Amino acid sequence: MRQFVVVGHDAPTSPEFPLDDLPSAAGRLDVLCRCVNSALFLSHGIRESRIHLVLADEYTVTFDGASARQLHPDERTTAARIRAALDAREDAIGHMPAEPSPGVELRQLGFEATLDRVGGTPVQLHEDGEPLFEAVPPTNPTFVLSDHSDFTPAERELLADRADSRFRVGPERLHADHSITVAHNWLDTDGYTDY
Amino acid sequence: MRQFVVVGHDAPTSPEFPLDDLPSAAGRLDVLCRCVNSALFLSHGIRESRIHLVLADEYTVTFDGASARQLHPDERTTAARIRAALDAREDAIGHMPAEPSPGVELRQLGFEATLDRVGGTPVQLHEDGEPLFEAVPPTNPTFVLSDHSDFTPAERELLADRADSRFRVGPERLHADHSITVAHNWLDTDGYTDY
Repeated sequence: MRQFVVVGHDAPTSPEFPLDDLPSAAGRLDVLCRCVNSALFLSHGIRESRIHLVLADEYTVTFDGASARQLHPDERTTAARIRAALDAREDAIGHMPAEPSPGVELRQLGFEATLDRVGGTPVQLHEDGEPLFEAVPPTNPTFVLSDHSDFTPAERELLADRADSRFRVGPERLHADHSITVAHNWLDTDGYTDY
Repeated sequence: MRQFVVVGHDAPTSPEFPLDDLPSAAGRLDVLCRCVNSALFLSHGIRESRIHLVLADEYTVTFDGASARQLHPDERTTAARIRAALDAREDAIGHMPAEPSPGVELRQLGFEATLDRVGGTPVQLHEDGEPLFEAVPPTNPTFVLSDHSDFTPAERELLADRADSRFRVGPERLHADHSITVAHNWLDTDGYTDY
């Protein structure tokens, strides 16, 4: 399975944010919403992937493409789902997640604990990494990305310890959601010579 | 230069649409907004590409990455720019565009006339095309895509006549905005063995 962990440094940790101002009043939640779109949507279909949004190192909201229902690709609707998850945050106790709707779960976990829980083969997408299209895809990759800000020194240290591979999507630096699209396409086309 | 033409079949042709309901009341304008994002945004930069949004075969709104100012990646802000362009639609007379802000222009042109005006080498992204990553990139490609709906028979006929190449982005069918990201990445990485 393909998984994505996206660190939202300024993301909200309570549901009191306006859906009309995601970039500013909701701490660039628009970036995370677009990442959900890139991770899960095909044209006329949903990928069986999972994406985990780490909100300010306090909560993690997971969207599971295999079991989530009524997902919509637009930012506002996805932000409303994240808000509903934060609204149910008191139901997340210890290892028990809140599950405001099927396939959407909120856990009281920060970045490190989320990496531990998610498993798979952690892969960092980073400008200093190996060119993606020359690399062999790992089994069950867990791509780890940052929102509009770079990883903090502590996050970088953690990733240096955990991530087996570091790949670069191309010579240009891309937004997190675009990097997810490229990573999916890399895995989609790998091994295909006649797709 | 890289250009993109995206056909918005149900897109609005007047500014009376709500920014709070892009998917439904604004005829899937969310798709076109994400296409603008994919066509123009780099992490911490703007690409010198152009994207032309054909609105219901009546108007075409062009965003020029080289000259547009204060672009934001979120759907709502882009939709507001399209609304401002439609609000100025009476200034578009004959071949003269309305230019509500630098680098954003609205013309009274449908799909065929836009293809004529835009030039470049028309390239169709289509599921029956040649695999993208095996192809040689054309000079000055103009990628032509459709929104959430397929091209109509008339549009398909026009494209069969005009587009020199037809490429497939991979074995999965992708949304238009994701296809734009893959096309950019293809051009970014082409010829690079050590990016």
